[in-house]
Amino acid sequence: MAPVHPLSELSFAETQQAIAIIRKLHGHTDLVFKAVTLEEPIKEQTIAYLNAEQNAKPLPSIPRTAFAAYYFKGTDSFITTYVNLSSGLVERTERMSPEYHGNVDFKEVVVVEEMVMKDPAVVEHIQKLQLPSHLMVVPEAWGFGTDGLDDARRQYQVYMFVGEKSNPDSNHYARPLSFSPVVDPVEMKVTRIDQIPTGEDWKTGETGPWQYIPPKEYVPEETTLRKGLKPLQIVQPAGPSYSITPDNVITWQKWHARIGFNYREGVVLRDVRYDGRPIFYRISLSEMTVPYADPRSPYHRKQAFDLGDVGAGLVSNNLKLGCDCLGSITYLDGLLVSPEGEPVVKENAVCIHEQDNGIGWKHSNYRTDRACVVRNRELVIQQILTVSNYEYILAFIFNQAGELHYEVRATGILSTAAIDPGCSVPWGTIVHEGVLAQHHQHLLSLRIDPAIGSYTDGNRLAYSECYAMPMDDFNPHGNGYISKMSLVEKAGGIDLDSSKSRVFMIQNAQITNTVNKMPIAYKIVAPPMQKILAHPDSYHFKRAEFADHNIYVTKYRQDELFSGGKYTNQSRGGEGIKSWVARGDSVVDEDIVVWVQFGLNHVPRIEDFPVMPVEILKVSLKPVNFFDRNPSVDVPPSQQNVNQSTFVHRDATGGACCAEGPKREQRL
Amino acid sequence: MAPVHPLSELSFAETQQAIAIIRKLHGHTDLVFKAVTLEEPIKEQTIAYLNAEQNAKPLPSIPRTAFAAYYFKGTDSFITTYVNLSSGLVERTERMSPEYHGNVDFKEVVVVEEMVMKDPAVVEHIQKLQLPSHLMVVPEAWGFGTDGLDDARRQYQVYMFVGEKSNPDSNHYARPLSFSPVVDPVEMKVTRIDQIPTGEDWKTGETGPWQYIPPKEYVPEETTLRKGLKPLQIVQPAGPSYSITPDNVITWQKWHARIGFNYREGVVLRDVRYDGRPIFYRISLSEMTVPYADPRSPYHRKQAFDLGDVGAGLVSNNLKLGCDCLGSITYLDGLLVSPEGEPVVKENAVCIHEQDNGIGWKHSNYRTDRACVVRNRELVIQQILTVSNYEYILAFIFNQAGELHYEVRATGILSTAAIDPGCSVPWGTIVHEGVLAQHHQHLLSLRIDPAIGSYTDGNRLAYSECYAMPMDDFNPHGNGYISKMSLVEKAGGIDLDSSKSRVFMIQNAQITNTVNKMPIAYKIVAPPMQKILAHPDSYHFKRAEFADHNIYVTKYRQDELFSGGKYTNQSRGGEGIKSWVARGDSVVDEDIVVWVQFGLNHVPRIEDFPVMPVEILKVSLKPVNFFDRNPSVDVPPSQQNVNQSTFVHRDATGGACCAEGPKREQRL
Repeated sequence: MAPVHPLSELSFAETQQAIAIIRKLHGHTDLVFKAVTLEEPIKEQTIAYLNAEQNAKPLPSIPRTAFAAYYFKGTDSFITTYVNLSSGLVERTERMSPEYHGNVDFKEVVVVEEMVMKDPAVVEHIQKLQLPSHLMVVPEAWGFGTDGLDDARRQYQVYMFVGEKSNPDSNHYARPLSFSPVVDPVEMKVTRIDQIPTGEDWKTGETGPWQYIPPKEYVPEETTLRKGLKPLQIVQPAGPSYSITPDNVITWQKWHARIGFNYREGVVLRDVRYDGRPIFYRISLSEMTVPYADPRSPYHRKQAFDLGDVGAGLVSNNLKLGCDCLGSITYLDGLLVSPEGEPVVKENAVCIHEQDNGIGWKHSNYRTDRACVVRNRELVIQQILTVSNYEYILAFIFNQAGELHYEVRATGILSTAAIDPGCSVPWGTIVHEGVLAQHHQHLLSLRIDPAIGSYTDGNRLAYSECYAMPMDDFNPHGNGYISKMSLVEKAGGIDLDSSKSRVFMIQNAQITNTVNKMPIAYKIVAPPMQKILAHPDSYHFKRAEFADHNIYVTKYRQDELFSGGKYTNQSRGGEGIKSWVARGDSVVDEDIVVWVQFGLNHVPRIEDFPVMPVEILKVSLKPVNFFDRNPSVDVPPSQQNVNQSTFVHRDATGGACCAEGPKREQRL
Repeated sequence: MAPVHPLSELSFAETQQAIAIIRKLHGHTDLVFKAVTLEEPIKEQTIAYLNAEQNAKPLPSIPRTAFAAYYFKGTDSFITTYVNLSSGLVERTERMSPEYHGNVDFKEVVVVEEMVMKDPAVVEHIQKLQLPSHLMVVPEAWGFGTDGLDDARRQYQVYMFVGEKSNPDSNHYARPLSFSPVVDPVEMKVTRIDQIPTGEDWKTGETGPWQYIPPKEYVPEETTLRKGLKPLQIVQPAGPSYSITPDNVITWQKWHARIGFNYREGVVLRDVRYDGRPIFYRISLSEMTVPYADPRSPYHRKQAFDLGDVGAGLVSNNLKLGCDCLGSITYLDGLLVSPEGEPVVKENAVCIHEQDNGIGWKHSNYRTDRACVVRNRELVIQQILTVSNYEYILAFIFNQAGELHYEVRATGILSTAAIDPGCSVPWGTIVHEGVLAQHHQHLLSLRIDPAIGSYTDGNRLAYSECYAMPMDDFNPHGNGYISKMSLVEKAGGIDLDSSKSRVFMIQNAQITNTVNKMPIAYKIVAPPMQKILAHPDSYHFKRAEFADHNIYVTKYRQDELFSGGKYTNQSRGGEGIKSWVARGDSVVDEDIVVWVQFGLNHVPRIEDFPVMPVEILKVSLKPVNFFDRNPSVDVPPSQQNVNQSTFVHRDATGGACCAEGPKREQRL
């Protein structure tokens, strides 16, 4: 049997082994597991393995290590342990200081919500609402965030809403309430009930009879559906163009990548190559933070870290054929661990399919009227997260031109708050009667561990800018402009500047293009972003360590995967990327990691409610002098005998066309 | 028979009528036509017509007017004439001053190129090249541009290349030459031959034996095509969801638009409504300029105006089934006029189809595990231009969420210049041995004539920005931020600012949202752009009047359609949008026009050669408080029984999956 590849995720058996070793370590103590996952193998060893694999040399043996995070049940004792699976030994185990917390899990959330609904003080509030009999209260537990005020213990802030009893999927976000229990999940009790301001300032009231708010639903059974949408189907009669090994290595149109999936990042791509040439060692979403704009308590703590607090793998959807993708689809399962310590298969956590994205390139020669055109086929590796109210559709998209796109679609339901009739506030939009959707930023951090052209050469981060030439004897007509390349020498944060056409690129200075002698590179095309608006002295800002620059670059270190810090739940900052850049490492021709921040400042529209049309963001990684020509020049031409498109004549839909017109023999 | 709709393009018969009237006007003088097209009807009258039409009232009669531009054959007498087709009378005719010129036409280009190849001085240069017998010289005539130096007469700059005799579609752009004839097309003769610098400065040499440059081809017969790409077909078994009248009014998923097509702008959308509510009176690409960065003569004049100089309709491709679109396609023809004065049908100038653009919205309720998901169906109205070397794929894309996207894909072949071995310059990239591709900007101007919610209310242009709140007693934790709306009061240019999340929106202050009382609006989501780099004193800058601001707003006036001026061929500026904003009109609650500039600064990569993978730009127009909820909330759910997707099991492609894993009964 072949040895396990060092970049394979933990198998079912390895996960069981790790859990067994951990259970043995703690004897009879009951454990609540947050995570058991592959600890990244030592990079130097792994690269030796990859190079041996590439050259069909004997493969070195690399130790397999599991990372586990768990609680002693019913306590705040949070333990992290590294288990060497090859030796069967615990390498390191640590009881974390009490201010560190594991991620939220939705099994606990459900227990918290059930408990809250039985709490006598909460019940009393609910009774005061005097809800009509067809309505019910729906609790929703949020991570607590932090304001640094006596909140080192893990807590939940539970927001309360009203839903229809007749339909458990009625949209309770359309009916927010103004009291909010705070829960200690260790004691599993309500510690207090916050009254929430519902006017234009900090003033709060008392819970009293509920002012009726009409429903605003998104489920189809509560909607009059539009008519006239005809089916559109995508067919691949000869099957897809990719193949995937049992170990999740995908090959497609000269691309090669190993698809990983873990509880925290969801999809991770490793060992990404084109035509055998390495490009990325590892690429994944590192973190996302969603700070909210409402300055009033308890909203001042409203800041989600959707990867660190929740886990992009843990909250991945189980995707369904014909709903989440269209065409010929391969699904991959993910492997997670239940709180009880059982490996659990996350079915259909990842979907893989090809799509047609219009024309890839075209040119017509006006002399001969010969048109050459190819289509732009893409390979999509997609997952979808549900983080309470919101969803994120995350996809790595490869194309035939050597490009890798990371696409984020934000959808789902706005987080809402109650607002009194006649009131309005500048930090939110009224999206329904009595309903405020607060402004918030979605700030994502994409981690790129590059290997441009080689795993053993270092890389460098450079940026090109364009400048007007001075109007002088050399440029007498004033049209001249130039591009200029600058080098980032030290680890740190740096920003986009569209006024200079600033474009960042990751270069390999050891390998130059055979034609133009420029270093081979991949450029980063990222959308503009308003950086985090929270005050630099705020916890929002301190916790979102990455959110103040479009680009960060660091020198690689083991265990630096998460730019907002490894433990973000109620974190206070100081342990993420800002600490790493503070080392002042040189990043010229070193093993570097590039972090791309992007996102959107979401000033809600009423059109984003009751469910939000996708807002699409994209970061593109494109070759720059990496190849000696357009790598898609060899894509077979687009041809009707393959594509089988059909004419739609207007006679069928709206009468005869060109009735008064000429025959079609004339051409200009 | 129903009267002709005032917004219908000229019919074949109307075009014939206009030409007949013009011929009669000039007696026996031979004419060379550049354009015969619909003159926009008086807006006030047209709106009365549209409102009558909408309310099923009697329709007013609106005069039909043709605009024609033409030369007296063999002269530089350039005439523009307006013909009232309803009365049969010439309304206005004018011999333009000699510095005004009609657009380039490719029939003339071919004649110019043939003439150049026979010119004795050119032949002498070609002989000096001593080309191998399998090669030939290929001329390519460019609009002359201007540097203001004695160049009021119309001229062509003809760039010279080398091609393979064996294949007329060999890529001559890979083999540029360093001499360039200048042609007077009135005299139809070569007036001089420019020697072009090929080093790092202005020095020029003499034409001598050609230094061999290997070919770099894009045509499939000269390429080893990649393997393994399986067919992907798009099927609509029940046909498409749109219908189109004989008069080119399309209705689709509550959208309504009249599709026009003219020689200059190509596709124009008029009377765009959603669910009966007006949104845009007229929307079209107004202009695009492509200034080049090389300061040396003759490149200092290299600046294309692809609409004004050439005509987006005139150079539209005749689209082919299965090549340019995929699925079920309707084609529309365009109507143009030949230089000889015959109406000519441009076959398949526009293609219309639906596409699936992934998920439209999704939400899963974690309590019930119920997922609701709809797909994002889009309607695409597309045309493709070939402007000598480059192509532009231009599409209006409607979706079900009330959004209209304008998408530009830049592809085709880089304009190239000769460069000596060992040389490099900061204003271009070497994309092949001896071949320089100069930096250039593509700066587009999209004209939006809005009618947000009504044709009779005025509109206003406002912009929202986000600001951090001061850290004080109201915002003690420093997380607070607000959005702030500002109004543009006077006609002028104004810029994007991503550091403030600045978003422009076109509002109707007369109609407020029923729920939140905000004015109904459409926002403009435009990509960042480095504005024109040419010096403000340069002709590049003066001619590209629109290219220095992301947004312009003007008060509507008849005949202000083209932001770079009506006659751009060898223009010197002073007649476009800068003149219109100089009136200082108030634009608050007036009949306004909004101009959105966008584009890219193209610093070529070697991967953009020999043919460029599509570079995609998009401007999106999205409702903001225009509806009372997400308008796509009523889209029927995505369902497998409709979508007919298929599982791709890995057994078929790479062995059994999850061999070591558990059965799938477990779920987290």
